[in-house]
Amino acid sequence: MPAIVECVPNFSEGRRKDVIDRIVFSIRSVPGIKILDVQMDPDHNRSVVTFAGGKENIQEGAYRGARAASELIDLTKHEGEHPRMGALDVLPFVPIAGVTMEDCVEIANKVGARIGKGLKIPVYMYEAAAKRPERANLENVRKGEFEVLKEAILTDESRYPDYGPRMIHPTAGAIAVGARMPLIAFNINLDSKDLKVAKEIARKIRASSGGMPKVKALGFYLEAKGVVQVSMNLTDYTVTPISKVFETVKAEAEARGVEVVESEIIGLIPLDAVCDLAAKFLKLGGFSSNQVLERRIWA
Amino acid sequence: MPAIVECVPNFSEGRRKDVIDRIVFSIRSVPGIKILDVQMDPDHNRSVVTFAGGKENIQEGAYRGARAASELIDLTKHEGEHPRMGALDVLPFVPIAGVTMEDCVEIANKVGARIGKGLKIPVYMYEAAAKRPERANLENVRKGEFEVLKEAILTDESRYPDYGPRMIHPTAGAIAVGARMPLIAFNINLDSKDLKVAKEIARKIRASSGGMPKVKALGFYLEAKGVVQVSMNLTDYTVTPISKVFETVKAEAEARGVEVVESEIIGLIPLDAVCDLAAKFLKLGGFSSNQVLERRIWA
Repeated sequence: MPAIVECVPNFSEGRRKDVIDRIVFSIRSVPGIKILDVQMDPDHNRSVVTFAGGKENIQEGAYRGARAASELIDLTKHEGEHPRMGALDVLPFVPIAGVTMEDCVEIANKVGARIGKGLKIPVYMYEAAAKRPERANLENVRKGEFEVLKEAILTDESRYPDYGPRMIHPTAGAIAVGARMPLIAFNINLDSKDLKVAKEIARKIRASSGGMPKVKALGFYLEAKGVVQVSMNLTDYTVTPISKVFETVKAEAEARGVEVVESEIIGLIPLDAVCDLAAKFLKLGGFSSNQVLERRIWA
Repeated sequence: MPAIVECVPNFSEGRRKDVIDRIVFSIRSVPGIKILDVQMDPDHNRSVVTFAGGKENIQEGAYRGARAASELIDLTKHEGEHPRMGALDVLPFVPIAGVTMEDCVEIANKVGARIGKGLKIPVYMYEAAAKRPERANLENVRKGEFEVLKEAILTDESRYPDYGPRMIHPTAGAIAVGARMPLIAFNINLDSKDLKVAKEIARKIRASSGGMPKVKALGFYLEAKGVVQVSMNLTDYTVTPISKVFETVKAEAEARGVEVVESEIIGLIPLDAVCDLAAKFLKLGGFSSNQVLERRIWA
C-alpha cells in the first residue's frame, strides 16, 4: 500500500469563493494530489481544505497553497471570530497509511523551512513538530493573533519564529506548521435548553481542565434546534476513543437528568475509528479494518 | 467511482492446496481482477474464493475459475460434510459499488449461459437471479446433491437446468449461479454450556422459522471455549441490520439469564454495514460512509 499523508491547511478567507477556488486549484495542480474536502465558513471567515498525497508531492501541494494564499489574502483586511495570525493560518500534516508521525514531523519541517525562505513568511512549528515544548499547543503560538504578533515577533525572544524572517509578513502574517493525528470533530446534542449543563459537562471531560486526554470541548446553545451541545475535537482517538467520550458525556448528562438527542461527526473520520466503534458495539473479538471489503478492493 | 462487482465461488476442494492455487491463478490471470480472500476448509473439503472486478472482467474471471475447477476437481471422488453438487458448486455475483442487483442478475445470466455452452455443465440460476421462484432458495436447487441430481436431471422436469445440457457433467457435476447481497457471517458467543439455549435463540431469530428476514441461524457448542454460539449468516444487512440482530440475541439471552461473551465477524464486511453500526452506537444523525477518510482517498 502506498504511503498516504493528509494535509489540512486553514485559510483566513471564508466568504470569497473565487479566492478559495484559486487556492484549491493551485494545490490540485500537483500530480497525484487528491482534494478530499473544502469547507468554507462565512461566519468565521475561514476555510479548511483537506487533501492527500504521498510523502513528496504533499510538500509541493502545501507550498503552492501557502504561496497562493499569500498572494490572494490580505490579513490586515480580515475580520472574523476565529483566532488567526496568517493568510494561511495553520498547516498540519497527518499520518494516514504507511507513514509514521516522525515522517510527518520531517515533512512539516521541510515545508516550514521552504515557506520561510521562499515566501518570507515567519513559520512556527507546533504540535508533534514543535521545537519548543510550549509551542506544542497552538494557542500559545497564536496568542494575541496577527495584531499582537507583528510587534512581539520583533522584540520578544519567546515569539521568535522557527523558520523565516524575524518579522511578520505585511499581508500574509505568520504560519503555524505542524504534525498531528487525524482530528475528529464530534458534537453531542442534549435534550436541554440549559447552557450551564453543556458547559459543565464540557469542562468536566476536556483535557485542559483535568478530564480525558486528547479531548477539547466547549458547550453551546443551538438556537435553531433549541437544545444545548457539547462540541468536541478529539485530537487522538487512539488515546481516548470516541466510544469512551460518548459514554462519558451520556453518563454526565444522565446524572443531570438530561438525555442525548443525537450526535454528529463533522467532516471526515478515519476508517479505524469507525471500526473501533463497530467492534465496541458488538463486543467483537479480533476485528480489524482489514476485514472491510472496500479496503481490500481499494487499497 | 468505477463499478465494483464481487464474485464468491465455492469449490468442492478444501484439502489439496495446489488445486486451489491453480484455480486462483486462473482467475487472477484476468487483467483488473483482484483476489480478496481465499479460505480453504479441510473439514468440509470446500474452499471459498472472493474476488472483485468490473462488470466485464468479473465475467471472464468467473468463467476461468469454473473451467479450471472442471479440469482439476472430480466430484465422484469428493467427500465432505457440506452439501454440494458441483466441482465449482455455487457462483454468486454481488453488487458492491456503482452497480445494481439487476446488473448482477444480468452478469450471472451471461456467465451461466457461457458455462453451460462452453463447459457442458448444467447451470441453475438461484437467489436474485432465479428463473423459477422455488430456485431462489439454494437448498431447493441442491436437494439430494450430486448423487441424486445426476438421475433426477434426466427425468424430473422440476430439476431441468436453466442453461447447459440436460445431463450432469460426469466429474464437474452442476453449478448454481446467482446474484445476492453481500453476506455477513456473524457469530455471537454466550456465557453458557447449554446447547439448548443457543438452539432456542437461533430458532427464534431465523427467517425460516418466522424470525427476522434475511437471517439464517444455528446453535453450536464450542468445545474449545466451553461456551455455546449462535452462528449466523445475514443475507441482506439493509433489511435486517447487524445492530438489530445483536440486540435481539442479547435480549433473548438475558431473558434466559445468559450474557453475551463476545461476537465475531468471519471474513469480510461491507463498509456501509460498519458505518451503520458506528452510527447506531453514537446516535449519529446524517452520517454516511462518504465521511470515511480512506474512502475519499481510495475510491
